[in-house]
Amino acid sequence: MPDAPSVGVVGATGAVGTVTLELLAARGFDRVRVFASARSAGRQLGPLTVEEATPEALARGDVDVFLFSVGTGASRELVPHAVEGGAVAIDKSAAYRLEPGIPLVVPEVNGGRAVEGGRIVANPNCCTIPLTCVLKPLHDAAGLVRVRVATYQSVSGAGKDGMDELFAQTKAVYTTGDIEAKKFPRRIAFNLIPHIDVFMEDGYTKEEWKMMMETKKILDPAIRLTATCVRVPVFIGHSEAVNIEFADPISADEARNILRNAPGCIVIDKREDGGYATPYEVAGEDATYISRIREDATVENGLAMWVVSDNLRKGAALNAVQIAECLDSRKLISAKKKAA
Amino acid sequence: MPDAPSVGVVGATGAVGTVTLELLAARGFDRVRVFASARSAGRQLGPLTVEEATPEALARGDVDVFLFSVGTGASRELVPHAVEGGAVAIDKSAAYRLEPGIPLVVPEVNGGRAVEGGRIVANPNCCTIPLTCVLKPLHDAAGLVRVRVATYQSVSGAGKDGMDELFAQTKAVYTTGDIEAKKFPRRIAFNLIPHIDVFMEDGYTKEEWKMMMETKKILDPAIRLTATCVRVPVFIGHSEAVNIEFADPISADEARNILRNAPGCIVIDKREDGGYATPYEVAGEDATYISRIREDATVENGLAMWVVSDNLRKGAALNAVQIAECLDSRKLISAKKKAA
Repeated sequence: MPDAPSVGVVGATGAVGTVTLELLAARGFDRVRVFASARSAGRQLGPLTVEEATPEALARGDVDVFLFSVGTGASRELVPHAVEGGAVAIDKSAAYRLEPGIPLVVPEVNGGRAVEGGRIVANPNCCTIPLTCVLKPLHDAAGLVRVRVATYQSVSGAGKDGMDELFAQTKAVYTTGDIEAKKFPRRIAFNLIPHIDVFMEDGYTKEEWKMMMETKKILDPAIRLTATCVRVPVFIGHSEAVNIEFADPISADEARNILRNAPGCIVIDKREDGGYATPYEVAGEDATYISRIREDATVENGLAMWVVSDNLRKGAALNAVQIAECLDSRKLISAKKKAA
Repeated sequence: MPDAPSVGVVGATGAVGTVTLELLAARGFDRVRVFASARSAGRQLGPLTVEEATPEALARGDVDVFLFSVGTGASRELVPHAVEGGAVAIDKSAAYRLEPGIPLVVPEVNGGRAVEGGRIVANPNCCTIPLTCVLKPLHDAAGLVRVRVATYQSVSGAGKDGMDELFAQTKAVYTTGDIEAKKFPRRIAFNLIPHIDVFMEDGYTKEEWKMMMETKKILDPAIRLTATCVRVPVFIGHSEAVNIEFADPISADEARNILRNAPGCIVIDKREDGGYATPYEVAGEDATYISRIREDATVENGLAMWVVSDNLRKGAALNAVQIAECLDSRKLISAKKKAA
């Protein structure tokens, strides 16, 4: 990329950070620096040396755009320092997503909003991103009324520790039998956990609430969405069983054609063995995959479908890098920086 | 059990057959014979010697009730011979479930129907059984209108071969890396497969269609149900994310109280770590477990919940043994036999 902005990856040693570095290299970002906690400072990530993500280091003003993939608490603490130094901060945590005036961006869906706000751009939840890629073109065609989602979320949604726990617990099933649950509230090896993030007063989990609120913010506040979010023993790839009720008639064939032409979407929908996307096969891919598109006859204008994407890529790192590209292509990173 | 009927288990060497034998012994059935294909004939199952399930052996008239846990094709072939010999046949396959005049029975829900029909009683699908245990008392209270289900079905739903395939594939991930898919159309280790049974013309799978048709037959033909059925890498225990729309208002608290008093149901619903059922924990248990009961605000009278049960027990073997007990307690097995 000619004159690609300089990028600082904060949380570079985590599961999303690792994928972010791969994507930046592949997409021509040639001025990359890596930041993490004091524990990892000094470590080598290929040719790059990890710098400590101190407020001072981030506020120094020598990086155009910071990609944050750290926890919500760390983002709240560190993002303001990056912005103070004049950088644009693209934040993958939940810290700023629902804050008024801060754009919540999926480039294929509402990329234009990335340039409307101030110097923070928020990246949605890993299930919201692929879901809105699918819902947006269908909403434009027939008007979404209600959306019901049941998720099948891989352990990498909980970071490297989550992946390590599934790996270790499963191995223990074959060896010592000594299963230890630390990262997840229950055993995840050969099991399911219908609980992601904390419980809210109404019995929904915060993960479920985020999907609802973020979809409204990104697409349309009139959309009614309800979700059940479940952790499954898969390493990479989030899947969603989705039922949608529309204002206007739309057939499965029409939806299939619309989604075939939708940016970032790939339809795999043959009614035969393997004629659908599975998370293992989609891991490492960039698109959102849509399968099992069929009419839901329980309501007048209903569709059901199966949506899968790589939660570390489109669900996190890739979406953030695409936001950086949106900003860069309009030369807004430097403009924003000059205006600071 | 005094004067328990004599029972023949057909398909005794399979995953469901094995559990059936455990349950019969524990529940006092002391005259049990075991049948299987020619391949297994002569094998010992504890003190019992496997007999070959030939048409002649089943028609001999020396068994009161046969419990069939074989495939749909084998049931179609063998059940008529058992009935011809004067026995009652309780069939776990899909062969007779939707046939008019043949009762489709979940004892807690419609046990009375077991005694209305002829000498065949059908056992519903492994997801339909726990679901109807939950839906029946709620339907009585507030009138079901629409039900949407996303399932998370364990590999034992595909029998012992399914369990062996998950075991072998997962082991191969840690050792040879050589993953072979034979029983399932795609790799199941650390993966999901949104496809159970064959595809139908409308894009639904037969598993999804069965849940719809069987729920209508058991509960009420006016109920509209749609399902997405997904195989998950869990050995035992089927889970279901369920959204229900009612005719009348019903709160989450009301539903929780109704389900606490419903036969065969256990509510585990605390809004804290582990305050819900997971399939690994429910494996080996008899009840249907209900968790995550909450209001679905996308519709006027809506509820969402999480339902888990042991698919080999309540979803199959236990339900069939309970049907045998229904018949026996009314001395109907011998009455039916005499009438033959």
